[in-house]
Amino acid sequence: MIIQLTPSISTTDKDAIVTKVKTLEYKTTEVKTQKGLYLVGIGKKDFDIRQLGHLPGIADIHRVSDDYKLVSRKWKVGRTAIDLGDGVILGDGSLSIMAGPCSIENEEQVKKTIDHLVSNGVRIMRGGVFKPRSSPYAFRGLGIDGLKMWYTLARQAGIKIITEVMQVSQIAEMVDYVDVFQVGARNTQNFNLLDELGKVDKAVMIKRGISGTIEELLYSAEYVFAAGNEKLILCERGIRTYEKASRNTLDINAIPILKEKTHLPVVADPSHGIGIREFVEPVALAAAIAGADGIIYETHQEPEKAASDGQQTLDFDESARLIAKLKKVSEIF
Amino acid sequence: MIIQLTPSISTTDKDAIVTKVKTLEYKTTEVKTQKGLYLVGIGKKDFDIRQLGHLPGIADIHRVSDDYKLVSRKWKVGRTAIDLGDGVILGDGSLSIMAGPCSIENEEQVKKTIDHLVSNGVRIMRGGVFKPRSSPYAFRGLGIDGLKMWYTLARQAGIKIITEVMQVSQIAEMVDYVDVFQVGARNTQNFNLLDELGKVDKAVMIKRGISGTIEELLYSAEYVFAAGNEKLILCERGIRTYEKASRNTLDINAIPILKEKTHLPVVADPSHGIGIREFVEPVALAAAIAGADGIIYETHQEPEKAASDGQQTLDFDESARLIAKLKKVSEIF
Amino acid sequence: MIIQLTPSISTTDKDAIVTKVKTLEYKTTEVKTQKGLYLVGIGKKDFDIRQLGHLPGIADIHRVSDDYKLVSRKWKVGRTAIDLGDGVILGDGSLSIMAGPCSIENEEQVKKTIDHLVSNGVRIMRGGVFKPRSSPYAFRGLGIDGLKMWYTLARQAGIKIITEVMQVSQIAEMVDYVDVFQVGARNTQNFNLLDELGKVDKAVMIKRGISGTIEELLYSAEYVFAAGNEKLILCERGIRTYEKASRNTLDINAIPILKEKTHLPVVADPSHGIGIREFVEPVALAAAIAGADGIIYETHQEPEKAASDGQQTLDFDESARLIAKLKKVSEIF
Amino acid sequence: MIIQLTPSISTTDKDAIVTKVKTLEYKTTEVKTQKGLYLVGIGKKDFDIRQLGHLPGIADIHRVSDDYKLVSRKWKVGRTAIDLGDGVILGDGSLSIMAGPCSIENEEQVKKTIDHLVSNGVRIMRGGVFKPRSSPYAFRGLGIDGLKMWYTLARQAGIKIITEVMQVSQIAEMVDYVDVFQVGARNTQNFNLLDELGKVDKAVMIKRGISGTIEELLYSAEYVFAAGNEKLILCERGIRTYEKASRNTLDINAIPILKEKTHLPVVADPSHGIGIREFVEPVALAAAIAGADGIIYETHQEPEKAASDGQQTLDFDESARLIAKLKKVSEIF
Repeated sequence: MIIQLTPSISTTDKDAIVTKVKTLEYKTTEVKTQKGLYLVGIGKKDFDIRQLGHLPGIADIHRVSDDYKLVSRKWKVGRTAIDLGDGVILGDGSLSIMAGPCSIENEEQVKKTIDHLVSNGVRIMRGGVFKPRSSPYAFRGLGIDGLKMWYTLARQAGIKIITEVMQVSQIAEMVDYVDVFQVGARNTQNFNLLDELGKVDKAVMIKRGISGTIEELLYSAEYVFAAGNEKLILCERGIRTYEKASRNTLDINAIPILKEKTHLPVVADPSHGIGIREFVEPVALAAAIAGADGIIYETHQEPEKAASDGQQTLDFDESARLIAKLKKVSEIF
Repeated sequence: MIIQLTPSISTTDKDAIVTKVKTLEYKTTEVKTQKGLYLVGIGKKDFDIRQLGHLPGIADIHRVSDDYKLVSRKWKVGRTAIDLGDGVILGDGSLSIMAGPCSIENEEQVKKTIDHLVSNGVRIMRGGVFKPRSSPYAFRGLGIDGLKMWYTLARQAGIKIITEVMQVSQIAEMVDYVDVFQVGARNTQNFNLLDELGKVDKAVMIKRGISGTIEELLYSAEYVFAAGNEKLILCERGIRTYEKASRNTLDINAIPILKEKTHLPVVADPSHGIGIREFVEPVALAAAIAGADGIIYETHQEPEKAASDGQQTLDFDESARLIAKLKKVSEIF
Repeated sequence: MIIQLTPSISTTDKDAIVTKVKTLEYKTTEVKTQKGLYLVGIGKKDFDIRQLGHLPGIADIHRVSDDYKLVSRKWKVGRTAIDLGDGVILGDGSLSIMAGPCSIENEEQVKKTIDHLVSNGVRIMRGGVFKPRSSPYAFRGLGIDGLKMWYTLARQAGIKIITEVMQVSQIAEMVDYVDVFQVGARNTQNFNLLDELGKVDKAVMIKRGISGTIEELLYSAEYVFAAGNEKLILCERGIRTYEKASRNTLDINAIPILKEKTHLPVVADPSHGIGIREFVEPVALAAAIAGADGIIYETHQEPEKAASDGQQTLDFDESARLIAKLKKVSEIF
Repeated sequence: MIIQLTPSISTTDKDAIVTKVKTLEYKTTEVKTQKGLYLVGIGKKDFDIRQLGHLPGIADIHRVSDDYKLVSRKWKVGRTAIDLGDGVILGDGSLSIMAGPCSIENEEQVKKTIDHLVSNGVRIMRGGVFKPRSSPYAFRGLGIDGLKMWYTLARQAGIKIITEVMQVSQIAEMVDYVDVFQVGARNTQNFNLLDELGKVDKAVMIKRGISGTIEELLYSAEYVFAAGNEKLILCERGIRTYEKASRNTLDINAIPILKEKTHLPVVADPSHGIGIREFVEPVALAAAIAGADGIIYETHQEPEKAASDGQQTLDFDESARLIAKLKKVSEIF
């Protein structure tokens, strides 16, 4: 069960509610986010909402039969929109586009990318400064200095930043330069990282695990929400299957399923989802028409020379064409 | 290599070509289809096309580096369109819609379905009369009598029939009542069935195996083509993955990849691809915009009472809405 | 439910039972095998066995909660042993070894293999004469003539034959020369083939599908049993996963799970299960100690020259070493 | 390439080597571990070892064609044994057994487990104090206090401790109370954690990712080694597949493959590998005979009451029986 509390509830009233809920054999967790104050009750017995409804300090009570609670649509049918400021909103019914290189490489690259985005009406730029790499000997990104350089240029152009955070200790140094923290596919179940991101008032986009289930993704979001942050975005980025003709298998089914199960915005990453440059466009369009709230993809002024992921990165012409088509698709119905 | 022969080639000229090709260490297979006469050469050495090109009876020669040959786009860049007669063509650049119940149940059901299709401009009806079932105790379909009943009603309404053939011995009894033979996901690598379907002048739609690779699907089509039938359609119907939130995982990536690799039309089956009625629509739209030549899905006047697959079957209202949306999507670019 | 009938039951008594069972809302299928006469009842309601138990002609009645019935251990706790004649028994508690080449190639190869088996105490030889191949241009086996040649040599040496049957029409021509029909991984759900094999009084070994579930394998066996043949063997041969370091992933878990679920003997195929010659031995030993009733593997006098599957085939020295180790392992507890 | 340096090499000599290697277009990483000093060279060109071999300070030079280097058997054919002190050695050719509960729950439980282990000759106890849980509302373990309590009791009994570390900040507080740090399946590619564990002089056991490849597991080990710690153990714990009859699919193939590819010890976890209590034994025996250096499994005095994972946990009788059988199996050849 989820009990929404009134913002001004007194400690006495809250304690009374917790005590009452305990008698129903429910364990409670208090959750305070940017937007509200909740008691999440975990228990098995059925109960009569009227036993609680009259208590002072309760704004609303919801039964949530799903095992994840706060991220479920069972209590919040309306969609969660994430306001990044300056008129950039994700999840408001329009289609958000996030584009940029796999890795932030240098100032010139950032400038060119920003120019490309601005001239195509895109407001959010992706890019990696801390790169998770299978091999310890591979390029691991420009780090915090790269982020600061990028931030300065992006702010001048009114562009928002989404970038991956890999560990707890990076959060504090990154937080002032980031609009959306991205949790990568290898960290979807890094629960300590999720816990800490719950304490920050910045949006968090969680990528589905390399072979994570839809349910695990929702649980990971529940971690962040339960730790205090409800500015959450989910991202389908392809799953690992036996098929080797593509890098991953973008799970198109996950988009309508997630939209049914959660009130959070759902984004698709066709670049990782198929991993082959020439097919990023059809997969991106498919995700958009299937109901995605946003598309995040890789673009670079010269994909052949990109520091990483060049084989799945669009050049600016391809990117502009994709943006134009995405706009058309987003307005079709 | 593929050598296209002139239709009127003499035996002497053909023998001369085969002999010459042997000297290049290529093994040849002669393939005669409804549309042409080919020699498929299998070998490893590189060769100079000029060694063969001057021989009489050769219309064209193509190097095909793929392991499958006749179905490859490496020799035939143009698309194969399948003409089912009466103006019903699959793969001509428009989007074909095929709809109907999982199982053919009775005359009333067939009539209602046909009425629904006709009034929505759909020309091809799907339905099973021989049903592959995991359990030997489950309903196995109406059989050949059901097909004949269906055929009579469909012909009156100008509707084409696609239905599954499960074994070699059924081909002869079915052939006069079928417009497209469907090879089911459990039979994708039933090579004897494929061989025999190669000898029939009817279109064949091959479904991807339950966890078949894209390459295996192309090889299966190669079987039919090499046995003499090039009226071939491929169908992506979802693959088996670890994810259990949906029945299968529709591999949206497969659509652009197949379109790149083969000249054959590619169809998607969102009903099996996700297996959940309420999500068939977004997945169907996604497949269409990703480049599918056709969409095949299940519809029934009362899905709750369908003999099989009711949980993934649209009612006629949902079906009509989907058809309208598919038409819009197919005309967007 | 499964009702075991007395062999001499009269038609009148049988009809009375069927009629009575119908009143319980159970659909019955009569099954007559080499070993017994059964009524399989499919229904959902619970029932009181005493309502039936007194009827004449009933030997025993069993509730079977599994969806597959005749192959379940819920009614037959004892193990099924398959007697191939001449003292060769599979599933009697000892470990059966089946070895031989992927493809039967010629007389010399067969002779050498038989010599190798005889001198190592192995009584069952595997080999393919009808070969399922992904590509239509690959070697498809020696066919029925190869089988006859093999049969003659094997019979002289007291060796039993297990070989794959690919289609219904081959059964009749093969039946006199085969001791165990093998159903390959691509045909696990070729239900027509299973039905027809149910009408033959020869043992049948069903391989698990390329990515078949354990439950599907049991259902496939149910097909054969329900059609009249209970001389059944199941084979774990590796499943398709994302891991590419091995050809397949031998599902070692499947062995104890199958042994728990069914009374049928369970065999493991380490050659296909890992697909790498040097690792066939440890995987074979693992399967044996996990409870397999038999091990089937590929061996050839010169694996490097084998017509197919050479990379996973043992030479005779490796084979002899494996046999010796398997014997030790089978006697350890 | 891997260049083993002499322990006493001078900075001048080292610089000379690095400079020389650069001329071969190899990038070097210096690695200093408990056991040695290495230069890992990453490059693509072939080179003549004699160009380097004569330089002072070089003990040995190895070409390593694998992408992972230090963990490869290409340069170190002999096996790495991990000495945990007090005569407890892992990877010396004998079979190590590690057992204990999923979660450390209380003092009584720890005492009973230790008694059980001691009386069965087991020297290493597993148990979780920091528990990764899908749901934020589930029990997350006793934490550092639980570890200290456990440590005190274990030391008294001569028992070594293996337990999971979930994040970088836990390493320092845990390091004095742990003999082997376990990296869980959800953290296999938590590269920051791996980096930091490379700086500690304690053994580290890395579990294969939930659907990690064998290659990724080796790369993860390379991270720890390259950061300075070569006391490494790899653990096969089952992979995620489509099969739902077991919790995971223990990849028995991975054991011989890993033993071929790396010099590090390889351990198997049958508890997670199959996830069903009654089948832990056969899977454990299978892993042992396939070549595992150790078996790690869950046992509890009352599995039905365990705080977590009870369904896959052996009671002490089952555990004693398994230990006895494992000993027999480990001595069979």
